[in-house]
Amino acid sequence: MPPSDISSASAISPLPAPWQDLFARLNHVAACYDAKVLLRDTLALLCELCGAEYGAMYEYRPEVQEVVCRIRHGTWCDDTKVCFPVERSLLAEQATSPQIRFFPNVRAEPGWKYTPDSDLHREAKSLLVVPFTRNGKLVAVGEIFDPQEIPLEQIAFASARLSTEIHKALLALQSQRDNARLQALVAIIGELNSTLDRDRLLRLLINYAAELLDAEASSLFLIDEKTGELVLHLASNWQEVPVEKIRVPPGKGIIGEAVSKEEPILVPQADTDRRHYPKVDLKSGFVTRSVLAVPLRSQMLTLGQNMGQYKARVIGGLEALNKRHGNFTQQDARMAILLAGQAATILSVIDLYADANELFLDAIQALVASIDAKDPYTEGHSRRVSEFSVAIAEELGLPPATIRQVRVGSLLHDVGKIGIPDNILKKPGRLTKEEFARMKEHPAIGGAIMRQVRLLEHTVPAIEEHHERLDGKGYPRGLIGEQISLLGRIVAVADVFDALTSDRPYRKGWRAEEALAYLNEHAGTQFSARCVRALTRAYATEKIRIQKERDA
Amino acid sequence: MPPSDISSASAISPLPAPWQDLFARLNHVAACYDAKVLLRDTLALLCELCGAEYGAMYEYRPEVQEVVCRIRHGTWCDDTKVCFPVERSLLAEQATSPQIRFFPNVRAEPGWKYTPDSDLHREAKSLLVVPFTRNGKLVAVGEIFDPQEIPLEQIAFASARLSTEIHKALLALQSQRDNARLQALVAIIGELNSTLDRDRLLRLLINYAAELLDAEASSLFLIDEKTGELVLHLASNWQEVPVEKIRVPPGKGIIGEAVSKEEPILVPQADTDRRHYPKVDLKSGFVTRSVLAVPLRSQMLTLGQNMGQYKARVIGGLEALNKRHGNFTQQDARMAILLAGQAATILSVIDLYADANELFLDAIQALVASIDAKDPYTEGHSRRVSEFSVAIAEELGLPPATIRQVRVGSLLHDVGKIGIPDNILKKPGRLTKEEFARMKEHPAIGGAIMRQVRLLEHTVPAIEEHHERLDGKGYPRGLIGEQISLLGRIVAVADVFDALTSDRPYRKGWRAEEALAYLNEHAGTQFSARCVRALTRAYATEKIRIQKERDA
Repeated sequence: MPPSDISSASAISPLPAPWQDLFARLNHVAACYDAKVLLRDTLALLCELCGAEYGAMYEYRPEVQEVVCRIRHGTWCDDTKVCFPVERSLLAEQATSPQIRFFPNVRAEPGWKYTPDSDLHREAKSLLVVPFTRNGKLVAVGEIFDPQEIPLEQIAFASARLSTEIHKALLALQSQRDNARLQALVAIIGELNSTLDRDRLLRLLINYAAELLDAEASSLFLIDEKTGELVLHLASNWQEVPVEKIRVPPGKGIIGEAVSKEEPILVPQADTDRRHYPKVDLKSGFVTRSVLAVPLRSQMLTLGQNMGQYKARVIGGLEALNKRHGNFTQQDARMAILLAGQAATILSVIDLYADANELFLDAIQALVASIDAKDPYTEGHSRRVSEFSVAIAEELGLPPATIRQVRVGSLLHDVGKIGIPDNILKKPGRLTKEEFARMKEHPAIGGAIMRQVRLLEHTVPAIEEHHERLDGKGYPRGLIGEQISLLGRIVAVADVFDALTSDRPYRKGWRAEEALAYLNEHAGTQFSARCVRALTRAYATEKIRIQKERDA
Repeated sequence: MPPSDISSASAISPLPAPWQDLFARLNHVAACYDAKVLLRDTLALLCELCGAEYGAMYEYRPEVQEVVCRIRHGTWCDDTKVCFPVERSLLAEQATSPQIRFFPNVRAEPGWKYTPDSDLHREAKSLLVVPFTRNGKLVAVGEIFDPQEIPLEQIAFASARLSTEIHKALLALQSQRDNARLQALVAIIGELNSTLDRDRLLRLLINYAAELLDAEASSLFLIDEKTGELVLHLASNWQEVPVEKIRVPPGKGIIGEAVSKEEPILVPQADTDRRHYPKVDLKSGFVTRSVLAVPLRSQMLTLGQNMGQYKARVIGGLEALNKRHGNFTQQDARMAILLAGQAATILSVIDLYADANELFLDAIQALVASIDAKDPYTEGHSRRVSEFSVAIAEELGLPPATIRQVRVGSLLHDVGKIGIPDNILKKPGRLTKEEFARMKEHPAIGGAIMRQVRLLEHTVPAIEEHHERLDGKGYPRGLIGEQISLLGRIVAVADVFDALTSDRPYRKGWRAEEALAYLNEHAGTQFSARCVRALTRAYATEKIRIQKERDA
């Protein structure tokens, strides 16, 4: 259906050709979605219309009453903040009364010295100021220096055509930034979520907080539960100074108020704020200009496994210091609250996980210590064997998961003694052949007890094989060489080292050197040579101490 | 500086008044940032210019080559999808050749029946189609029905003035939606993060996945580690059908491919996709149209406490089914991947936490069982006392954290027997006075062992006070009434109930009714009456069984 079929009924005369041309050019400029290019092209068009060589474009931000220079020397300026005294600057008056204005002798104007470009354009004689408005309100301002002509109607036409485009493009830019920041937040939360290491989480938190909030530095305070004070725990700007000495009394300072009121606090000028607690600055040497402080408040956790809930709580506060560009905004505060809240919740999870692990280790340690204590001569034995075993494992460079198995398995190695009668276990003299045969059952008994625990499966060899010998002369199974698990070989060495260096009813404990000499002598036949060397190194480098050295 | 100072040098004649009026009206329409209002006002202006009564506005989405009706009957339509065959519809041709077109007898047009409004506007005689373009490419289309006049130049002017505004406003709308969705994602992750309950996490995940991705339903598959099959674990659309029967062989189906390739898969039409695994639909009765499938892949976790790392792994897959409006997009896929990844990581943390708790409980259970086993007559005693104690605590309606203390404390109540010599513990006959005095030390010994464990502090009263009596005649401290902790009172009742109902060397175990009668008889003097009533209820409602009932 060709357009010629349309019965045109236009009641008005055609648009004059020069206006058609200008309109087409403006439409072309307007077609750009990118605020940076749109402002640049708008300025270029204005300069062309006026026969001018240079100018600048400013964004007006009504929420903070700031003009921000966006195009200077033809290129985009990212967040160059230019504040102005609203009453006096030549740009500022546009905010209250937007109107195209021409200053033929601009340097004589009293407001010139407050104009952002007065330094840059010292040579300028005249200035044309072109406001861009939407519904009568300022959106942006153009400065044209030394215009050769001023086609007022065309300039007004261009401004009217492009103002709403500029407004939309600037809002889109903000929206894109918010979007990018939310994406960054999701990525950050993902990384925080992937650690169960408390210190690592806190370090990640302060670094990401400064990055996300475009701040020069950030600080993390944790509540000291005894005193209620806020203790500076980490600060992104301090590499050298020990931070833990800096304490803020409850409710004091900007951070104290944010924590006690459980709400974000924005302070554009810290030095004049009555809440600012300058002791932190004095101690650190850092000069705080602007502050955004938020509480670290965890959510309530549902624990599962019929364990109920873990209550929501405020554990401290997070500060972002010195916004790099402009001031901290309400949007910054919202982002900070989201980040701090998630971090605090993850921290609760980390603490619960650490508690569950501590509970397990401490409980079995207490129980095996009570088994050791049945015989006063073996008091503390299991704990020491565990320390020696871990030291050997570390010297061997084993991975953390294996070291964990060594730690638990060695702690439990003698747990089978629970099944050995007291009269054998506590007998002061030498055991009879029958008694010794009974005694030799303890690795198997211990294995049988701990084998019931699904998650301890990997540690059972430490219990069952700690009396095996490389040459097959050990018990209970007489395993040979590599048939003995690494855990069994490690614990065997640690066990004998502690037995030899501890006092017994029938002899004094040996010196460590003597015991190591004995172990080295039997390395390769009775003991794993690698494990004996590892123990020898650990002792030489003072990573372990024998019983007598502890008691001394 | 009044504008009269400006030396106007306009080289062209002033813009004619009718054009000035139209330009002002267009600028007014353009001042709107909201795409919904902007499209509505644009359509109203077009209708006015043409003396028409009704029309519609369409958004063109080039990435999917769809026109989407946005304004109909003067109001905004949210995501009404209208697909069209590009070759034939009267709107569709605008996509390839945007041009104002007039169809004086529209119902005679072959493309009319493919035009979205052919149903709505059956009475329409003529149709004016007005494209809105940016750099020659279609952005939106206006339909004007039965125009009385067609002021072509003004319509073209309006279209040129508003096209770029509409383009920016539509992009902004998309950006706002992306933004809202990211905010929703952050909130969802926050809620996922606040649970350590596996089932709750999975339920939250499928519900939020459907919501976030605007899908009719979603399904969660978990890998069966033995067979490698994907087992349907939860489906948001199934309330009745048991889902665990539905299994997908490794790599099969859309979900299988997403999981095995570890990448998102978008399927606009499932029934024609060769990968679609129809057995799931057949079993469930749900008809799958479109699918977005993503793997559930956790990140590597840093465990802290020198425990190394927990490896990244794929544990299953997540499907969103039947996008409500339009098709699943790449943006949907990105959101789904973010959500699934975070959920999988949180799931790893939940599993680790559950393991740590299981490890603790199982380990102490194994250890106390081995203490019980020293005397064959007390085998299984601690475990039964723990079950009875928990049943009492539950009947009393105690909070989960207290029930947990009861569970652990009662399990450990006899741990002090580790310090009692075998000859007393295992003596077949009655104990002498001296032996009994020694035996009475076990609560204090147990308390001393477990008091070393910081996190078991709250459970120690269960150990120390389970032989106290309300009338003060108990041991070791002779506490009276409320001086005895609730834990102590609970475990005392559970302990005696198990002792009475178990066989002893000197007597057969009582029947449960006899034991309960004894407890009730001594309620208020020896035992807490509340606890005895609670135990009686628990037994009556078959929540617990005595030793003989188990063995039977």
